[in-house]
Amino acid sequence: MNAPVRNIRQLESYIAGQWVRGAGKAVPLLDAATGEPVALIDASGIDLKAALSFGRETGNPALRKMSFHERALMLKALGQALMEAKEEFYALSTATGATRTDSWIDIEGGIGTLLSYASKGRRELPNTRTLVDGDVELLSRDNTFSGQHILTPLEGVAIHINAFNFPCWGMLEKLAPTLLAGMPAIVKPASQTAYLTELMVRRIIDLDILPKGALQLVSGSVGDLLDHVDCQDVVTFTGSAATGRKLKAHPTIVENSVRFTMEADSLNAAILGPDAVAGTEEFDLFVKEVAREMTAKAGQKCTAIRRVIAPRSGVEALIRALDERLAKTPLGNPGEEGIKMGPLASLAQRDEVRARIKDLQGDAEIVAGDPDKPNVTSGDAEAGAFLSPVLLYCDRPDGARAVHDVEAFGPVSTIIPYETAEEAAALARRGKGSLVASVFTNDPKFARDTVHALGPWHGRVMIGNRASAKSSTGHGSPLPVLVHGGPGRAGGGEELGGMRSVKHYMQRTAVQAAPWLLSEITGRWMHGARAKHDTMHPFRKSLAELEIGDQLVTDTRTVTLEDIEHFANFTGDTFYAHMDEKAAKANPFFEGRVAHGYLIVSFAAGLFVDPAPGPVLANYGVDSLRFLTPVNPGDTLQVTLTAKQINPRETESYGEVRWDCTVTNQETQVVAQYDVLTMVAKTWPQQA
Amino acid sequence: MNAPVRNIRQLESYIAGQWVRGAGKAVPLLDAATGEPVALIDASGIDLKAALSFGRETGNPALRKMSFHERALMLKALGQALMEAKEEFYALSTATGATRTDSWIDIEGGIGTLLSYASKGRRELPNTRTLVDGDVELLSRDNTFSGQHILTPLEGVAIHINAFNFPCWGMLEKLAPTLLAGMPAIVKPASQTAYLTELMVRRIIDLDILPKGALQLVSGSVGDLLDHVDCQDVVTFTGSAATGRKLKAHPTIVENSVRFTMEADSLNAAILGPDAVAGTEEFDLFVKEVAREMTAKAGQKCTAIRRVIAPRSGVEALIRALDERLAKTPLGNPGEEGIKMGPLASLAQRDEVRARIKDLQGDAEIVAGDPDKPNVTSGDAEAGAFLSPVLLYCDRPDGARAVHDVEAFGPVSTIIPYETAEEAAALARRGKGSLVASVFTNDPKFARDTVHALGPWHGRVMIGNRASAKSSTGHGSPLPVLVHGGPGRAGGGEELGGMRSVKHYMQRTAVQAAPWLLSEITGRWMHGARAKHDTMHPFRKSLAELEIGDQLVTDTRTVTLEDIEHFANFTGDTFYAHMDEKAAKANPFFEGRVAHGYLIVSFAAGLFVDPAPGPVLANYGVDSLRFLTPVNPGDTLQVTLTAKQINPRETESYGEVRWDCTVTNQETQVVAQYDVLTMVAKTWPQQA
Repeated sequence: MNAPVRNIRQLESYIAGQWVRGAGKAVPLLDAATGEPVALIDASGIDLKAALSFGRETGNPALRKMSFHERALMLKALGQALMEAKEEFYALSTATGATRTDSWIDIEGGIGTLLSYASKGRRELPNTRTLVDGDVELLSRDNTFSGQHILTPLEGVAIHINAFNFPCWGMLEKLAPTLLAGMPAIVKPASQTAYLTELMVRRIIDLDILPKGALQLVSGSVGDLLDHVDCQDVVTFTGSAATGRKLKAHPTIVENSVRFTMEADSLNAAILGPDAVAGTEEFDLFVKEVAREMTAKAGQKCTAIRRVIAPRSGVEALIRALDERLAKTPLGNPGEEGIKMGPLASLAQRDEVRARIKDLQGDAEIVAGDPDKPNVTSGDAEAGAFLSPVLLYCDRPDGARAVHDVEAFGPVSTIIPYETAEEAAALARRGKGSLVASVFTNDPKFARDTVHALGPWHGRVMIGNRASAKSSTGHGSPLPVLVHGGPGRAGGGEELGGMRSVKHYMQRTAVQAAPWLLSEITGRWMHGARAKHDTMHPFRKSLAELEIGDQLVTDTRTVTLEDIEHFANFTGDTFYAHMDEKAAKANPFFEGRVAHGYLIVSFAAGLFVDPAPGPVLANYGVDSLRFLTPVNPGDTLQVTLTAKQINPRETESYGEVRWDCTVTNQETQVVAQYDVLTMVAKTWPQQA
Repeated sequence: MNAPVRNIRQLESYIAGQWVRGAGKAVPLLDAATGEPVALIDASGIDLKAALSFGRETGNPALRKMSFHERALMLKALGQALMEAKEEFYALSTATGATRTDSWIDIEGGIGTLLSYASKGRRELPNTRTLVDGDVELLSRDNTFSGQHILTPLEGVAIHINAFNFPCWGMLEKLAPTLLAGMPAIVKPASQTAYLTELMVRRIIDLDILPKGALQLVSGSVGDLLDHVDCQDVVTFTGSAATGRKLKAHPTIVENSVRFTMEADSLNAAILGPDAVAGTEEFDLFVKEVAREMTAKAGQKCTAIRRVIAPRSGVEALIRALDERLAKTPLGNPGEEGIKMGPLASLAQRDEVRARIKDLQGDAEIVAGDPDKPNVTSGDAEAGAFLSPVLLYCDRPDGARAVHDVEAFGPVSTIIPYETAEEAAALARRGKGSLVASVFTNDPKFARDTVHALGPWHGRVMIGNRASAKSSTGHGSPLPVLVHGGPGRAGGGEELGGMRSVKHYMQRTAVQAAPWLLSEITGRWMHGARAKHDTMHPFRKSLAELEIGDQLVTDTRTVTLEDIEHFANFTGDTFYAHMDEKAAKANPFFEGRVAHGYLIVSFAAGLFVDPAPGPVLANYGVDSLRFLTPVNPGDTLQVTLTAKQINPRETESYGEVRWDCTVTNQETQVVAQYDVLTMVAKTWPQQA
């Protein structure tokens, strides 16, 4: 272990715009399969308080002045460039013990997360700097005082303390929402595999796509960094529950109410449905999935299946099938052809897993694999941290403790038998909160009941069945669009989940004001706010000329009985409420024949549309249309159309304009209320 | 203080369905104004672990089997009954030092919060037991694997540890979302005013509206209760930051990742805009609001204005105006006529506030009021905890520390001068995170810039100006529909905010499955799920007969150029894209003349509507309509209409049905996609 280390590169930290080295004694990091040193690590003496200040004072202002779409395009450029450089990461990843498939999850899964946020960010967020959250809340009867929640990026730095098992994905899945929200980050990877994170950060910095201060790296110990955090910073942690709890109770984090999110390894369960007996597709899918989760990353995944909950009557067949399948997974040097499973991350990690298997043996017996004799196809079974998959069986799970409490963070799972559906869910709950559970069944009732029973205890539940056999992303894969994190043992945190996680880096504020002031603050017109009228029809204004509050009050049009009958016959919509006075009167909502809702919106368009070619290019939709007062023959309609929200696209010659459309009758009652969505050219006449 | 206490009632705790007394030495609670004992308190020896078990095993299952609407109606009944009994609460509230107005905030404000959740719950939540959160996420190209987030109520108990200043509101504002979510609660009021909470809980229990175990009360110390919490419980705390931090770092809370929310007193600021000089309406509103916040509840509100940030040039006029106004606030026995301000909650509390005023005097001078000589109109200035309002002025706020860090939880505020808008926001930030800030201005630019600067540091920002002078709910009032809580010093928590807070008592779970299974689990049909066809048109089915997935595939209709021209002339919508081939071709989205979007939805209705009277009573709206492919003359439309969601109303003879409406062309491209919203009778023919 302490062989002389020569010519091995010392990892650097990237702090305040400089690559720097620790001043203390550097520690060697060893190749998981060969035991050879890969790099040296040390961060002692580095001024981490300065890193925090640099992030706050340089990175944060640079990011927050960008819009969501600008930041999303930045993530897209970054993701594309990293994808082009991916082979360099793959090459180094082998040293962590990862096979090509393992590395794919880490490297391309991580870069894919950046790209997912880049694309979803532009689709689901407006091109602004502040988010509007939820609806306007009317706070007064006369509409002179209203509330609206907004979200603004925090003014500090996000500190991401990551686990050793995903040196790339672990960084990128947190970086994507952080940067999209407008916050800079300081990344602190776990030492064991920090060389791969350092390489990727080096490439990111070289690309010069991120503004200065947006990303810093600590290669080594986190030192006194957390002593300096305040309420504008965020600390996230992924790793062991013990360390996570210590950080969560860190005096400065508690004292300053610093946002802290934790994602800890948990005792995730997979449940085989009672219908999924040997011979069914679900049984085969289950066997494949359990084996995959035991061997991928050599079982070093926080989402891996630790507890295999199966009908007691099916246990024997299951053990046989798993044993067979696991035997077909060659263990060896991850860089070599045909190797399907690599070593654990380090020899220390292997010792740890072996000790935990001993604990499990208090409740369960080993039914496949030998923890002490790795069955290697290639590589040195002693120098490398190799461990064959170990399957245990716990015959009496009710009285057991270790199988519900002890985690062996390696290729280790325990089969636990159940008798009834309730018992299956109860056994899953004994994990005390997990990141994920999966259920393999083709029985909708079992699926429904089990999901509802598992819900409060799990951040994610996956159903495996024949219909999704080919397309399922699997038990173990967190996805950018779904939340990742779980209650209890899993740390109680929440990450990812699409745009939800962007809000983890922003502060929600309820703003109360008179509607006209509230509109000025949120950039979104609302009823009660000021409207602007001029001689130009608002459809004649380009995106550059249009302002929120630009309003058109149309001419009026009286709806006749002939109109209603004509529309009915023309469209074929001869619903009785339009055609039959007596039947309409019998309806609880009407006092007699009424105009079609679609007739109202069609006439409304006839009133507000400006027909000649102009900057308004298309009506691409309508949102939240409500018919609020019935329109009877003889009623006279008028439309008030107001520019509500203006959203220029970064990469197009047009943008979206959302118009508030309010249709009233002769008594100024609102008969219909909706948002009309249009595409509007940025300039008019359009530039080339 | 330790006068013999005879015939004074000892408060009881309500545990596991029984009113019980502590076995230890009971402590007297004194009337704030007279110093007379009001009640005795002690909870020692009470089995609080049993309370937790009772809540989990009896209260939780009873609540979770109810639907959201059933729970909302329960809150409505409770709120209405408590409102009828309100005078009893007012009578006892005087002992806390509260004037009638102070009590109104606490009692009717609290009951109003119940009623707000009752009404918003039925309007904004479906009548189900599980919430669907966000959109369906497609996880495969062939739509055989999708994701949907759901929210299920936690299986434990919510423990609400409340502050002394709002014995009713403090309980009810947390109870409303807790019960609506489906969780039971254990309420632990601060001892000083626990007699009022105890009285209200007694009335709630007597009313017998809540299921057994839904509400328990601890009158006295919380004992070892928190040693037994797990990840299915929630702990909330309102009160001093010091106690809050201790609870947050409680070993069991950290160990089990128990959800913990804290709402601590903070140094809330009010900012006078540079435009709001003496003589303006905003200046007068500001003076009124600062004085009100200093004197209401004798300044014992976590939202009270502690720091008054004003333009340096306006400070003199402001001090004069505030001094005058405060002098007109008679201090005395809160029960008496004409008294506008009562005593602090206790003599100990007064000693505490006096000590903090001394701290503030290190940075600031007193410019109005004398902390040592309460100017009482009635009552005994020595026996009662009276304190006159004290206004301080800090001339050099940059170098000051105490005014930004020390809270005197009483009628005490400090005026702080600023020169520029940036400086005003920077001074507000020095409070290190607050529940609320207010800005008094009629200048939209100042309002916008200041709100965006304050956002990351505040949970709520209120703008005061002339337009909302009469309707504003004020700086100090948390509202049920807006979030309450703030970052940093305010504890980093979030309460209220309408339906947001219901989710604080539920677990979000990402569910992944084949669409047909996912539909079975969520009770919501989605594309890719199974559809059911039978000979009966789905519009002929009552709510009782209809099932999600019931589907109609209509006949087809070809759109002719004549149809388009006819529709244009009939409605008046002669937009060029419908009428002018050459101009339409020049548009980036079209290849020639296209049908109106409103024509497409009108023809679609003509295809899917069943005209005869039946259970479908009305189309009340349309959601998320998108036109996805242009329809050119000669294209043939067909509609697929599928029952997507069925929502029976508890108190009506009908419910809502949401239909997925997909309009395709002859090439099976989707031309329009939307949800049609209808009211459908529960039975047909309708029962009386």
